[in-house]
Amino acid sequence: MQLLLNKIEDNSLTVGIVGLGYVGLPLAVSFASAGVNVIGFDNSSAKVAKINTGENYISDISAELWQEALTRKTISATTDFTRLSGCQAILICVPTPLDQFHKPNMSFIESACMVIGKNMKKGTFVCLESTTYPTTTEHFVLPILEKESGLRHGSGFWLAFSPERVDPGNKSWFTRNTPKVLGALNEEGLTIGKAIYTLAVDHIYTVSSPRVAEMVKILENTYRLVNISLINEMALLCGKMDIDIWEVIEAAKTKPYGFQAFYPGPGIGGHCIPLDPFYLEYIAKKFNFDLSMINTAGHINMMMPHRMTLKISSALNRYKKSINGSNILFLGVAYKPDIDDERESPALRIIDEVAQKGGNIHYHDPFVATIETIQGRKFNSDPLTAGLISIADCVVITTNHSAFDIPWILGNAQLVVDLRNAVKDASEKVYKL
Amino acid sequence: MQLLLNKIEDNSLTVGIVGLGYVGLPLAVSFASAGVNVIGFDNSSAKVAKINTGENYISDISAELWQEALTRKTISATTDFTRLSGCQAILICVPTPLDQFHKPNMSFIESACMVIGKNMKKGTFVCLESTTYPTTTEHFVLPILEKESGLRHGSGFWLAFSPERVDPGNKSWFTRNTPKVLGALNEEGLTIGKAIYTLAVDHIYTVSSPRVAEMVKILENTYRLVNISLINEMALLCGKMDIDIWEVIEAAKTKPYGFQAFYPGPGIGGHCIPLDPFYLEYIAKKFNFDLSMINTAGHINMMMPHRMTLKISSALNRYKKSINGSNILFLGVAYKPDIDDERESPALRIIDEVAQKGGNIHYHDPFVATIETIQGRKFNSDPLTAGLISIADCVVITTNHSAFDIPWILGNAQLVVDLRNAVKDASEKVYKL
Repeated sequence: MQLLLNKIEDNSLTVGIVGLGYVGLPLAVSFASAGVNVIGFDNSSAKVAKINTGENYISDISAELWQEALTRKTISATTDFTRLSGCQAILICVPTPLDQFHKPNMSFIESACMVIGKNMKKGTFVCLESTTYPTTTEHFVLPILEKESGLRHGSGFWLAFSPERVDPGNKSWFTRNTPKVLGALNEEGLTIGKAIYTLAVDHIYTVSSPRVAEMVKILENTYRLVNISLINEMALLCGKMDIDIWEVIEAAKTKPYGFQAFYPGPGIGGHCIPLDPFYLEYIAKKFNFDLSMINTAGHINMMMPHRMTLKISSALNRYKKSINGSNILFLGVAYKPDIDDERESPALRIIDEVAQKGGNIHYHDPFVATIETIQGRKFNSDPLTAGLISIADCVVITTNHSAFDIPWILGNAQLVVDLRNAVKDASEKVYKL
Repeated sequence: MQLLLNKIEDNSLTVGIVGLGYVGLPLAVSFASAGVNVIGFDNSSAKVAKINTGENYISDISAELWQEALTRKTISATTDFTRLSGCQAILICVPTPLDQFHKPNMSFIESACMVIGKNMKKGTFVCLESTTYPTTTEHFVLPILEKESGLRHGSGFWLAFSPERVDPGNKSWFTRNTPKVLGALNEEGLTIGKAIYTLAVDHIYTVSSPRVAEMVKILENTYRLVNISLINEMALLCGKMDIDIWEVIEAAKTKPYGFQAFYPGPGIGGHCIPLDPFYLEYIAKKFNFDLSMINTAGHINMMMPHRMTLKISSALNRYKKSINGSNILFLGVAYKPDIDDERESPALRIIDEVAQKGGNIHYHDPFVATIETIQGRKFNSDPLTAGLISIADCVVITTNHSAFDIPWILGNAQLVVDLRNAVKDASEKVYKL
């Protein structure tokens, strides 16, 4: 342990980061910008090449921070995982998606652990950052590392869990200033982990075990899933009761305690909220436990894209039109405003359903040039012109990118279905969620 | 309208407040302490007598404010509802409970409206504060007032809705400094209502209709119901997974955005959270709409007292004891700490179930001298002595009143079931939720 702490002290530590996505690369940069040696590992030679030629592909990393990391020359990337043997700290930032049956896909963690186990030297600190079900670190990662390395935890290496808290597009909170939760398998691991992470993150909050740390992240995201689902359900009811849900939320926000506002929308998206709670549901089954809140919330959100299609159909019906044969223009396919990520975006599901019903699909998103829907339909973003808007029988605002000039869109549109409260003063031709 | 505004201007307005409970009396005092003439109306001659002899029976009203109201001599109370004819503003603060089948009991609003309608003069402003389902003001209150008074809304009187936001025991937020939402049936009513409420409350937030204001309150409390239910369900799972939910919540709170902490407990209590969402559920049925989140949340909380009984049973089982024949001491029966209100408290339900299983019930609550359970069992609070604690086979902390000396209780107890995270360092004889 002292050896590792000394290496931190004299800055001869090398941190290996496995997985160079929206979590791994910002973390690598946070270390590198502080002058810590970082090697990034990824199977994508494209990503690796970009990093090594100084190209930043994660929009959340500020230009200054990226420049600082480049200037320090302490960051490099490789597809050669044998170089993990030169790292004293290895942080795992690989994806944990769901398969199409909503079951955890642990294959990325599994293969990362196998290659780490095969290559790591005695005395390495390993930490998982990927969101996963509680007990993963102890019951899934630990056995693989011990088996592949032939080392024993405690004497041969240390293992911990520290959930990533990346919020894409958040301008105020980034890797360094977002407090980081850390739980390790033993006290030594916790001490080492805290010393290492302190190089990249200002505040480390330690907890008693990896499973507590795992549950923390799941709780944070389950809270969001449940509240988004609640407000979506309330929005649907408000629609029937002739109540403007957006006005209700603004008024409720004047309560100075005990309320946090969530906003309705066409469904949940991204790589966290739609997925993480189902990791918990998966492990809960093992404990013979039914998570009814997650179940119900999941159900509501699963239905949202379909209900949004019905809204489009209702709106067209006003004008004696059907989806079948109409031109439908979708504005925004990213899952939230001003980001370039359309993963799990509800827009893709709505587009599939509208296409299936015979709608002619057009879309525009300043951040997403091409899409492939869940059912495999491919589209290119059309340039947003007055002509494009005016030929659309219905314009659907699926993402409220701040670049959208709403009055101009409204001026040119025949009919707008606004799923994001982008249009503040509703007129006759606007159909709101 | 100008007449009423003039009366506000020259302070010749008389405000009538119907219902002098935890909402009505603080509101009356807030008006009176500002020198506004207030008459409180209640069927309870005991309450009326107390007010008229200067006795405050609502602990949330500070001594200073009460004294100020008395000094001003602008507050009085009566059981004579014909005196409503002397009020230009009438605010309805009556209870809206549920019947035993979880259906709204509108009888208090109904009789208040009938007596107001019979007595009010032309040009009166009427506002409902009771939490209720959206559309109540328009579809329930309005017809009664018009029928009983023979007046028409707009020409004869004005009607509005403004939800109470009283949080019993809250030391920071009280009637005057808590922003108040107000929605009226027409613009005049809104102008008048805002002018009147501004006398008692610092910030009035107006919305477009009574039904929006009604929904605001329901949203606020549904948000709480759903999140308490979520954390209760998570707590039960954590119990099975050997994870300390309290530690998880503390760690999650370090997330600087997008998270609000709720805490588990033996179930929900009080006069709002367990009731209000079911008012919405009631009206939703009329719109053929199923509020699945409220359903699920309600189900979880309905089961909590039973699950807590099982926890007590499990704890006793460690010591080879059963509930049947054991002395069980409950500490705290109020539904939240440091208040004297045991309405809808889950403690009462747990006590019923434990008694039914043959447990010998004792309880201590510094704020609640006697209780009657849901099933009609009556108990008196026992003085909290070392002897009482030590003869208990199990001490159950059902409410974490700050007066409880936890180390002393722990020192004298054989076994503690802590449903409120009152005991910070868990020892062998502590069984936590």
